[in-house]
Amino acid sequence: MNKLNLSNIQKPIIEELSHFDSVFKNNLKSDVILVDLVARYIIKQKGKRIRPILVLLSAKLAGGITERSYRGAALVELLHTATLVHDDVVDGAEKRRSFPSINAIWKNKIAVLMGDYLLSRGLMIAVENNDFDFLKTITNTVKRMSEGELLQMSKTRKLNINEETYFRIISDKTASLLSTCCEIGALSSTNNADQISALKNFGEYLGLSFQIRDDILDYIGNSKIIGKNPGRDIKDKKITLPLIYALRNADKNESSKIIRYVKDGEKNKKVEEVIDFVKQNGGLEYAEKVAFEYSQKAKDSLKIFQSSESYTSLESLVDFVVSRKN
Amino acid sequence: MNKLNLSNIQKPIIEELSHFDSVFKNNLKSDVILVDLVARYIIKQKGKRIRPILVLLSAKLAGGITERSYRGAALVELLHTATLVHDDVVDGAEKRRSFPSINAIWKNKIAVLMGDYLLSRGLMIAVENNDFDFLKTITNTVKRMSEGELLQMSKTRKLNINEETYFRIISDKTASLLSTCCEIGALSSTNNADQISALKNFGEYLGLSFQIRDDILDYIGNSKIIGKNPGRDIKDKKITLPLIYALRNADKNESSKIIRYVKDGEKNKKVEEVIDFVKQNGGLEYAEKVAFEYSQKAKDSLKIFQSSESYTSLESLVDFVVSRKN
Repeated sequence: MNKLNLSNIQKPIIEELSHFDSVFKNNLKSDVILVDLVARYIIKQKGKRIRPILVLLSAKLAGGITERSYRGAALVELLHTATLVHDDVVDGAEKRRSFPSINAIWKNKIAVLMGDYLLSRGLMIAVENNDFDFLKTITNTVKRMSEGELLQMSKTRKLNINEETYFRIISDKTASLLSTCCEIGALSSTNNADQISALKNFGEYLGLSFQIRDDILDYIGNSKIIGKNPGRDIKDKKITLPLIYALRNADKNESSKIIRYVKDGEKNKKVEEVIDFVKQNGGLEYAEKVAFEYSQKAKDSLKIFQSSESYTSLESLVDFVVSRKN
Repeated sequence: MNKLNLSNIQKPIIEELSHFDSVFKNNLKSDVILVDLVARYIIKQKGKRIRPILVLLSAKLAGGITERSYRGAALVELLHTATLVHDDVVDGAEKRRSFPSINAIWKNKIAVLMGDYLLSRGLMIAVENNDFDFLKTITNTVKRMSEGELLQMSKTRKLNINEETYFRIISDKTASLLSTCCEIGALSSTNNADQISALKNFGEYLGLSFQIRDDILDYIGNSKIIGKNPGRDIKDKKITLPLIYALRNADKNESSKIIRYVKDGEKNKKVEEVIDFVKQNGGLEYAEKVAFEYSQKAKDSLKIFQSSESYTSLESLVDFVVSRKN
């Protein structure tokens, strides 16, 4: 389907997105030369901008893009960038979007401080403009994202994770920010509580299917992205939905054996066997089914709105997310 | 002087400080077991609580301690703790207040995430209670603290630092938070703009003398604190006020030689010689004079208030800061 690429999806907001770019750029300016240098490097290697796109499409759908929408978009992108910079430090990642990571070029210390700086710059946009509603949602999101990652890490150590915990983790670490993007977009253009809540739910369901898809890709492979060969999660002892289902579905002895393999972490020599186990026990079909269900729930959330270009784009974004190959 | 110890200084707010402890503790609770575990560890090894003390004394001086004062005190202590946790990651520090650091026990990843979590918990206290004035000042402080550290690091690389840059750095990285503590304390108890501004200035001057004293201690030694032997800053290529003055005051050729030593960083075998150079060229006297001047300015800022127990405590805190041995 040709529809399912980002340049089609962002068509209704193509001019607004380029205005966003300049707002984002301006917000990264600093009179500290080193900060400015790192910021320019970050701007140069811009990503897919999924989060600002969500803010702007949601705003457009709920009434129209306003000055506040741009501030909201810059806020979420700054927060997202801050977490990526911190992630690369803690993972010791050398690359990000095929460029050397901040920590690879400027070392950990500067990367941690830059992450803190980017977060505070994001919050300052809201503070300076009295966008108190944005602050409420974004602060809670920062808390949920860090708590979700920490919950995942503690479960990873003990390898005891069930579906309920899995959904709490992915809701906190991934869906919360996408939900906040849509909520902020809505808040920037309407006071209608039903519409705000509908878009917030849309983002949450979109986020859940996004993360489940991510976890599926770890099993079926994703050669386009460096460092994302199949089985990365298994070596990291991350037990995600496909494996949770397979372990529950399979013979008990076999499941125990697989758990023992996963416990070996980096030293695990049986990654291929774990992947086959998941495939043979229906783990991928199950995860795909659940991701699809959430994508339907996301689309259903939009039904209170009248059809429009932005409506279609948000629907396509859902399809894009659950069918993406990387 | 017996007056100059923290237990005397905190006498006017001794009960309030123990109430603060329970507010702080409650704000660290989490239903994520790992978060709770790390949080309890942090609470157990509480530090000097200079920042909450400043909030509470300022509030008491400006009209009286309110519920908002406790929230402000918890907010600044959470932010301060977050930066310490991140600092230990970037410095690879094994100890903090003679306990193993968070990164030493739980590794870097958990420490970086815990730092983010603590910061967001702090901001949430303000957000949940609509303390928008707190958010304005604290967000700007987070920005200044990270920017100040980054400015210091870029100057450290090039070893070109003058007095003006030094004061910008210490104002941003240290004085900004102490100033914010006093401002938040005042905001929690009065609307009087002159009093708020007076306490804000008090905190700024206190912070400047605090940091200058810290930089002096690096030359005269501070054996009580592990990892704080004399010359640490020199090996870190941090050029602080005593050295800036000595370099300006000394013979040009000798100064160039000293700069070459400092450039060696960790490999510097002439740390003792650098310290002697600073002593012989009046660097310590000069820095002590400047720290004393700022401590006077801090005290002068308080003059719009009537004398009281809290007034005396804030004055003693200034003396404590500029005369401390560690």
